[in-house]
Formats: sequence, C-alpha cells, structure tokens
Amino acid sequence: MFGEEYDVIVVGGGHAGAEAAAAAANLGSKTLLVTMNLQNIGQMSCNPAMGGIAKGQIVREIDALGGYSGIVSDKSAIQFKMLNKSKGPAMWSPRTQNDRMRFAEEWRLMLERTPNVDFYQEMVSGLLVENNKITGVKTSLGIEIKSKAVVLTNGTFLNGLIHIGEKQFGGGRAGEKAATGITEQLVDLGFESGRMKTGTPPRVDGRSLDYSKMIVQPGDLTPEKFSYTNTKSLANQRDCYMTHTSALVHDLLREGFDRSPMFNGRIKSLGPRYCPSIEDKINRFADKDSHQMFIEPEGWETVEVYVNGFSTSLPEDVQFKALRSVVGFEKVKFFRPGYAIEYDYFPPTQLKHTLETKLVENLYFAGQINGTTGYEEAASQGLMAGINAHLKLKEKDALILKRDEAYIGVLIDDLITKGTEEPYRMFTSRAEYRTLLRQDNADLRLTPLSHSIGLATDSRMKRMEEKQEQSESLVQFFKETSVLPKDINPILESVNSSLVKQSDKMYKAFSRPNVTMDHMLQLENVSAFVQENNFDNEILEQAEVQIKYSGYIAKEKLNADKLHRLEAVKIPANFDYSKLKSLSFEAREKLTKIQPVTISQASRISGVTPSDISVLLVFLGR
Amino acid sequence: MFGEEYDVIVVGGGHAGAEAAAAAANLGSKTLLVTMNLQNIGQMSCNPAMGGIAKGQIVREIDALGGYSGIVSDKSAIQFKMLNKSKGPAMWSPRTQNDRMRFAEEWRLMLERTPNVDFYQEMVSGLLVENNKITGVKTSLGIEIKSKAVVLTNGTFLNGLIHIGEKQFGGGRAGEKAATGITEQLVDLGFESGRMKTGTPPRVDGRSLDYSKMIVQPGDLTPEKFSYTNTKSLANQRDCYMTHTSALVHDLLREGFDRSPMFNGRIKSLGPRYCPSIEDKINRFADKDSHQMFIEPEGWETVEVYVNGFSTSLPEDVQFKALRSVVGFEKVKFFRPGYAIEYDYFPPTQLKHTLETKLVENLYFAGQINGTTGYEEAASQGLMAGINAHLKLKEKDALILKRDEAYIGVLIDDLITKGTEEPYRMFTSRAEYRTLLRQDNADLRLTPLSHSIGLATDSRMKRMEEKQEQSESLVQFFKETSVLPKDINPILESVNSSLVKQSDKMYKAFSRPNVTMDHMLQLENVSAFVQENNFDNEILEQAEVQIKYSGYIAKEKLNADKLHRLEAVKIPANFDYSKLKSLSFEAREKLTKIQPVTISQASRISGVTPSDISVLLVFLGR
Repeated sequence: MFGEEYDVIVVGGGHAGAEAAAAAANLGSKTLLVTMNLQNIGQMSCNPAMGGIAKGQIVREIDALGGYSGIVSDKSAIQFKMLNKSKGPAMWSPRTQNDRMRFAEEWRLMLERTPNVDFYQEMVSGLLVENNKITGVKTSLGIEIKSKAVVLTNGTFLNGLIHIGEKQFGGGRAGEKAATGITEQLVDLGFESGRMKTGTPPRVDGRSLDYSKMIVQPGDLTPEKFSYTNTKSLANQRDCYMTHTSALVHDLLREGFDRSPMFNGRIKSLGPRYCPSIEDKINRFADKDSHQMFIEPEGWETVEVYVNGFSTSLPEDVQFKALRSVVGFEKVKFFRPGYAIEYDYFPPTQLKHTLETKLVENLYFAGQINGTTGYEEAASQGLMAGINAHLKLKEKDALILKRDEAYIGVLIDDLITKGTEEPYRMFTSRAEYRTLLRQDNADLRLTPLSHSIGLATDSRMKRMEEKQEQSESLVQFFKETSVLPKDINPILESVNSSLVKQSDKMYKAFSRPNVTMDHMLQLENVSAFVQENNFDNEILEQAEVQIKYSGYIAKEKLNADKLHRLEAVKIPANFDYSKLKSLSFEAREKLTKIQPVTISQASRISGVTPSDISVLLVFLGR
Repeated sequence: MFGEEYDVIVVGGGHAGAEAAAAAANLGSKTLLVTMNLQNIGQMSCNPAMGGIAKGQIVREIDALGGYSGIVSDKSAIQFKMLNKSKGPAMWSPRTQNDRMRFAEEWRLMLERTPNVDFYQEMVSGLLVENNKITGVKTSLGIEIKSKAVVLTNGTFLNGLIHIGEKQFGGGRAGEKAATGITEQLVDLGFESGRMKTGTPPRVDGRSLDYSKMIVQPGDLTPEKFSYTNTKSLANQRDCYMTHTSALVHDLLREGFDRSPMFNGRIKSLGPRYCPSIEDKINRFADKDSHQMFIEPEGWETVEVYVNGFSTSLPEDVQFKALRSVVGFEKVKFFRPGYAIEYDYFPPTQLKHTLETKLVENLYFAGQINGTTGYEEAASQGLMAGINAHLKLKEKDALILKRDEAYIGVLIDDLITKGTEEPYRMFTSRAEYRTLLRQDNADLRLTPLSHSIGLATDSRMKRMEEKQEQSESLVQFFKETSVLPKDINPILESVNSSLVKQSDKMYKAFSRPNVTMDHMLQLENVSAFVQENNFDNEILEQAEVQIKYSGYIAKEKLNADKLHRLEAVKIPANFDYSKLKSLSFEAREKLTKIQPVTISQASRISGVTPSDISVLLVFLGR
C-alpha cells in the first residue's frame, strides 16, 4: 500500500507526535503520522490546561519556533491566566484552561492543513532496522511502511497497564488499547527500558457540585494569549473553582491504603513527584491536614469537570467516599474514577542532543517515552525531534538549543546528560539562566534560529524584528531623553522614592524600584513618543522588562560564572544533608542517596537545583 | 459508589443508547448511561450521513416522538437532500450528510443538557438478575450498579472481531476494544445468540482525490431539515461526488478473493444484503462491470472522506491497488483500510413488542443487538425501549406503534414476529401502508401519541396542532371555493389537461395530474387566502399532499384489504420462483429456499415484500 518511501514517520498523535509531524512537514519532509485512532489526535489525556509555571514559557518557545501548540491552545482556550504576575518577569507564566474537544479538533485540523502530512490509522508494532539504521515501521496488520527517519512518541501506550485499587488491566488510556511489540524489539536491539507511572483524577459531573461553597477562580481581567501570531485573546472566559481536602477526607482515603496499588507493592515504578496522587500527598506530608483542589471545566459547554489535585489509584469506592466528603462535593457523581497507569520508557541518556537514539540511526524518541511528564515537555521534544530528523536527512547542521537559549534546551540537556528515574517535569528552578528565558522574549530568542532553518515563517520573523526594533527604540528613548526634577519628582514621591535635584536621563528614574511604565507614560514627551510610533502593549512591556530587569540579568550571569568556577569543589564523605533545611526536600533525599563526591557531580543529579548548589557552596565556605 | 438505585441503566452510547437514555430521562426516569468511552458518544461508525430512503422517514418519526436524532442531525448537517422528490410523496426521503465530529459532540451535549441523565465510563461485563428480573449491571471493575430496568445497546461490540484479509483481531470498532461477558451470561440465562457481520469502506485523504474527474453531487437548492422543531436549515452546503468502479477494478479485487474472509470461510455470519461489500457485489452481480461510488466528506473542514459503495474486508493491499484504479482515485492515500466486523446478536423473536426480553423482566434490547443495521433503525429502537422501560416501571400502558402508524412500528413488528437472519434494514417496500407513513406527516401521526405519554413537549404538540388546523383549513378552502373556467383553463392548458366548460370547486382541478400548488397560487383568491393566513411552505406542501394523494391512499387501503382476504391462498409444492422475474431477487432466493405453503406464510418471510406478494397473487390467478 505504501509504495513510496516517506522521509519521516511519526508514531503517535499526541502532543509530541503532532508537533513532530508538523515540524518535519513544514520543513519540507514527506511525513506520515501513524496512530491507533485518528479520532484521538491531540488528546489532553490528563488536565484540560496548557502552560503554567515554566511550562507556559515552553509553549511560548514552541510557538516562537513555529510549532503549533500555542495556536491550538489559543484557539481552544476557555480561560487565560498569567501566573506569578506579582513576581519578576522571569517568573511570569502564561496558562490556559482549554476545551478538551476543541483542542483535539484544532490539532487535527492544523495537521490536515499542513501539506506534507499524511495520516494512517493503525498500531505500529515494530520497527524496520537495517545495519543499525531505521528504514521504516511495521504495523499490526503486517504492513511495512518505508521511511528514512522515525520519531517514536508512544506516550503511555507501550505495554500500558491501568491500575484502580486492586484491579489492573491493559490500556494506553482509559477506554483505549495498549500498544505492544515496540519495547520488546528495542530491548532486543540493545536498548535499556524501564517502567514509569502516572495518574489522573476522577472526572465528575459538574451538575452535581455545589460551587457556592467553593472559591471562584476567574481568568485574568485582560487575558493575553500564547501565540506571537494573530490568534485572538478571549472575550469571554469560564471560571474555575477552588476547594480543599480535610482531615476527614484524608482519613477516608487512608482506609483504602491497604488496597492501594501504590502502597501494596503492585505498582513498582515511580510517578511524577510534582504531580503526586492524593494518597501520595497524604503519605508524604502526614502533618498537613488539607490540600488544595482546583475544579476545572472540560470545555465551553460540557458539564464534565476535572478534579485537579485529586489524582488517585485508590479503589473506586474509596475515591468516591472520600470525594463526597470534600466541601462542595457532597453530592458528586462520577463520570469515571481516577486511575494510575504504568508504561514503558527508555532512559533518555540513550539519546543524542538531537533526540536521535545512539543505537539506531535516524530513530528519534520524544515525549513520555523519554521519561518526561507534561504536555508541554512532550510537545517541545516532538518539535525538536521533527526538526532534527528533517535537518539530518537534508545533511544540515542540527538545531540544538543551549541552556541559556531556551527551557527546551534545559529540558533536553537535562534528559540526555542526567537521565531521569522519575517522570521529569520542567520548573523555572531547573534553568540556571531563567532571567534570560522569559515568556515575553521567546520570539526574540528563538524565532531567528527557527527562521534560519526555514521553519518559522517570514511573517513570524518580520513581526519579531519589528518588536525588537520598536522596543529597542523605546529603551533608547529612555536612555537618551532627560527629565527635569519638577516632572519626575511627583512620580518618585508617589512610590516613596527619594527625590532628585537635577535633570537626568529618564532611564535612571525608570530603573528605580516600583517605578513602572505606567508612571513613565504620565510624562508628556513619553506618551507623545509612544503614540507617535504606535507602540502597542507588547512593546511597552518588552521595553519595561529590558530596563527594569537589566540589573537582575547582570547578577544572574555573575552567579552562573561563579558556579562554573567552583564546580570542582569536594564534598566530605558521608555528609549529613538532613541538617541543611534550606535544601529542597527532593535535594536532601537525592543527595543522601547518591552521596556525590564533588559539587559538580551534585549539580548533575536530577532534581538538585542551582539554588541547592548555592546553599551547598555557602555551607562549604565558598 | 452507586448507592442509589437508578430507574433505567442504558448500556452503550451509540444511536440506540443515546435515544434510549434521552427518552427514559425526559419521561422522568432516573437514568444512567454507561459506556466504554464517554468521548465516543453518538459515533457514526460507518458513513457520515443520516436518513435516506425509509430511513429519513424514521428520523422524522423519531423527531415527532420527541427523540433527538433529528435535531442532532440538523445541527451537524453539511448537506441536505430530499431523495425521490420526482416520485410520489410517500417516497420522499430526507437525507443529510453530517460532520462526524459535530454529530458526536451535539449528541453528547444534548444528553448532558437532559437533567435526568447521569454518565459513567466503564465496560459493562455482566447483568444483575434475580428471579428472571433485572436488578442492575456489573462493570469490569466489579462495580454493581442497581436499577429497575436495563436497556442493552451494544452495537457491534459484543465479542466484536475485526477482519481485514487474512488477519483478524478483537475490537468493537477500528481502534476500540470489544466488550465481553454479556453474551455468555445471556446464553446461560437461556437466550439464543447468533453472529452477524457488517463492514465499512476505507477512509481516505480527500487531498489525494481528483474531483474534476468525478460528477459533483450538490445538496438541494432549498435545503429542508429533519426536525419539526426550530432547528435551522443549511445556508451553505458541502458537495459530494460520484464515481464508479470498472471491469479493471473488479479484476483487481478478484485477485484477492482467495484471501477474502468472506469467501474463504473465515467469516461465517451474514452481512447486510442491501449494504453489500464491493466483493459481494462483484460476486453476486457478475454481469455488471461497474458500480457507483459516492464520495462523502466527513465534515465541514476535515480532509477525510468516506468512500461510500466500497465497503470491503479484502486484504489492505488489494483494497489499495483496486481503489487506485478507480477514476479520480489514481493517487489516493488511505487513512485506514475498510474492514468487516463480526459480532453477537440475539434473534429478536426473543423480544416483546416493547423490546423487553421475554426471558428477563425489565431487560430491553435495542439496535444491532437485535440484528438490525443502520443508525436510524438503531435510534428508533432505542427510543422505543427507553419509552417502554419507563412506562412499565410507572405501571402505564406500553407505547406500541402499529404498522400503519409508523415505520418504527413496521420495524419492530417485523423483528419480533419474523426475526432476521441477516442485518435488517428498513425499506419503504417493507411497509404495507407506506402511503400513510410519509415524512411530511410523521408529526401528525406520532406527536399526539408521544404527547399523551408526556414525552413530546407541549410546544411540539401545539406546533403540530397548528399545522394540522392550517393545512385542513387550506384543504377545506379548495373544497369549498369555486373557480371559473376563464381562471382555471389557462392552468389546465399549461399542463395539457382538458379544459372545463363550467365553474367547479377548485379541489377538482387541483386533483388532476400535473396541477400543483404553484399553479393554484396563480389564482388571485388562493394567494390572497394563503397570505391572509400566513401559511408557510410546510402548510402548502401538506395541503397539496393531502389533496393530490387522497386517491392513492384510498387505493392503498383497498390493496391492503385484498391482501388480508387472500392471505390463506395455497402455493403449489416445488413452485419454480426463478421464472417470476418480476419478483425481487431476494424474494426469489428466499421463497425458493423456504418454499412456503401459503401466501400468508410467504408474506411473513423477511425480505418478501407486499409487492412480491401482489406478484404471486396475480400469478396464482387472484
């Protein structure tokens, strides 16, 4: 049936697979997306949301590189929030709630509109490999499809095993079949495989909840959006709600612990530390008698809601009884119980920076198969795998993002150099240069790189260049234009800043704490300049960040340099990390277990953050 | 988890299950819909279309009874056609092409907005039965859910086995799991079960087709709609296309016959006679070297298209090679191959007229589990099962539609009295009183019945009454109002009808062949009366049908009476039916096999139509 050879075959149609297919095809590769069910492309298997802390930055980076996740998220958004707006701009993180059905439909249509993407529905059960080089895939019907490169994005489907209480059954997601054959073949080829675990909370009937007892969580008053393209921001939004567990809820959940696959040894693999099940939270933080829960609508119209914070694989009767004791959930009706799922992954140290496997040429892995968790982490790997699969086939230089260029660079560098034994999630703290890796400048950082390889379109590039020119001209204006004491002092007074006695450049006053762009716009010549040049909000924000944040950036670079110089510092044997309360809980646990010999080694342990290293340095007298 | 007892549990969320749940809930029953995947409610498993000959009438009947299929079809329609418009109004059959994703989403939202419907996602693997009375269901997790009644609508999922060429694997639909447990338990309870087969064609990439070589099939210029409610008719429509197979295509398909599960004995069960696979058509009609194919878009935006007329379970390479030889398909790319599926059904003679099983009280079957094929057949059974499950629980009289009241009455009477050994599909020829069972009067026939049991809403009833009053007053106007020769003769002349010499009632001229409502509206007092009363198109059509068709109705009744009187006529032993070419092919085949002793017995054989009986009567000298 498939007489013609494809350039790239992407196996799987989730976040990773969809981005991989789009990227390879947009670069010009003849691409085939093979998935078990074409109606399930772009599924949000867990919560109906994109972005969030560090993840929102990744979505912006994907968009800046010409990926589709930002556009799909914008088109299917039902709520937008810029998280951490009260902190510095490095922490600002966009996040959307999404309509689950719309999201999937938008993804499918985006891919259908991408000329070089073909589609085929079937389970891939094997790979065609000759002389350690990929030559295609084999389906469960026995069809061989030839290709020059293959990207595997199997998510939780490889030998997926679903657990609810003491029951377990095969499946890739609730209601869907597991995939078999690939793991076994890869192991035969010499790959090391492992098992990971993830989980998801119950879905419930929103009509059965009493929202009047919960705290409403509305979207931002002036919602922004992910994509740098001309997607629309939301005119209307849907609210989320917050409630919390209680000591009673915890007691009820504990009653099921003896039947929990997490605690009775049935599930052996590790789950995502920062997205723990509710039973895990109760167990690990036994002193806390309340945890937050966020109630997220699954779409514009559906009554189905997602119970964020209540992921669980306890027996369904325990889930139900406990959830009914949560405030607002007294009459809850289940659409389906939560569950855990175990699946195969391949320790990502078996990959190159391009996400190509070291063992089989032109075979790429992206997403959960590499031990990550999260839609954004998966999508960004898919994008990079798709890009690099194409570039290699065309004998062009690989596109490898550095740690100071993108969260995506941090993610992939972490994965392939440190590996991961538990599902890896991105955090701002994983990035040493996070002051540089802001959501507001992802286009400035990455669009030129992507444009140079032919992925980001000319119009994206043009838009980015205009933004750069305009914001620079505005910064320049503040640097060059002087302001008189009589004009600037009322502003300084209003923010309790000391007054000036002589005229000085505006830049200087603007750099002071609490002085904002809004203040500066009160100056007549500033507002005139802005109006004259038609600068929009994005330009104002960009200039403000560049002026207000320049000090932090310099400081950050200094810290990074220090770390570099000091990374060979020795740590005494049998060092007692438990007394260093300023280390994160995860760092204490991991350092105690691994007992690194040097700070350098310590810094490479997954989950030990740059700030943990700083603490150690201080303690060791450096 | 399910402490409370439900009134009605519906197992399955397809056309039958969705209608059953809606009907029971709207009547006031606490209803639970349990399905393996809540994201797959209202799936169109085969072609993306509703209605058609006899089936369109059923959709109108479902709508008139207060079911949702008509509304869902209207909301998701992308093309509308009134089939057979050139024939008498008894043959007029509405049909829509639908957006597959929209259709499913609309169904889900309709059900979510129905207050008494709860949802639960899981596989039902068993029934709770006490003393031959249903008490609930048991899920694959072992959860017992209590209810007073259960409606099974398992579609093709019970021990579903998918065939493509020589390969076979378990599944309820492509990419979905089969359901197990229920058949075995029912057989233990004394039920007889059987296997049936159905199939579906390949789905292909519309971008790979050359439509310029095909014949465009646009929708109606003034599209109507299914529902009698205020759904909107289409402002824009998508085109379908027609092409055809050729001798070469047939030769290529024949090359795979030795690997065909239809012909090598692997598939033993019978498929739908009137929706045959392409290999079946080639085999049965060996003299024909071309069959029509209709290319149907799967939605407003998707590039996926449905290849109507090319259902097949031949090996995928054979499907592909043959399809590439079809005009316009030279470069076709597959989304997925066609396949056949075998599944369990229960011969419907085990049911009462209410669709309740004879063996287990308050257990109802609807849809393919009863041996039918078609969305409309399934939906109408679901509706009636939901209605009757509710009515029985409330100790009210059952709602049983008679053969002269509705196609749905014909369908259910056929099923439970004649049974069926092959998938049963509705045709106008199955209805003795089809002149009465028109698409235009389904509301007049059925809304009062449904309103009396509390299902059809007051607004539906009011609308129907207004239509009835208005059309009757218009008919009355034609009966009472005289017209002068000078006014009517130009009209009569224009249709080559003999002129009149004296004034007479308008009704008389209107009754003549070829005189239409449009002609009558040329008369000043007619158009004045219509305008004055604000009669819309539906009223004009209804009055026209009632006037122009009254003669046919009388004739039909006479025929029916004749049949009743003569139904004991004997047929000679070993009668050679093959010489009666005016019998349908199916009738010849079945009569030869069964050799009925009397006309009465002949008439009860599934597939032997009233017109076949008329032919026999003429031949036997009656």
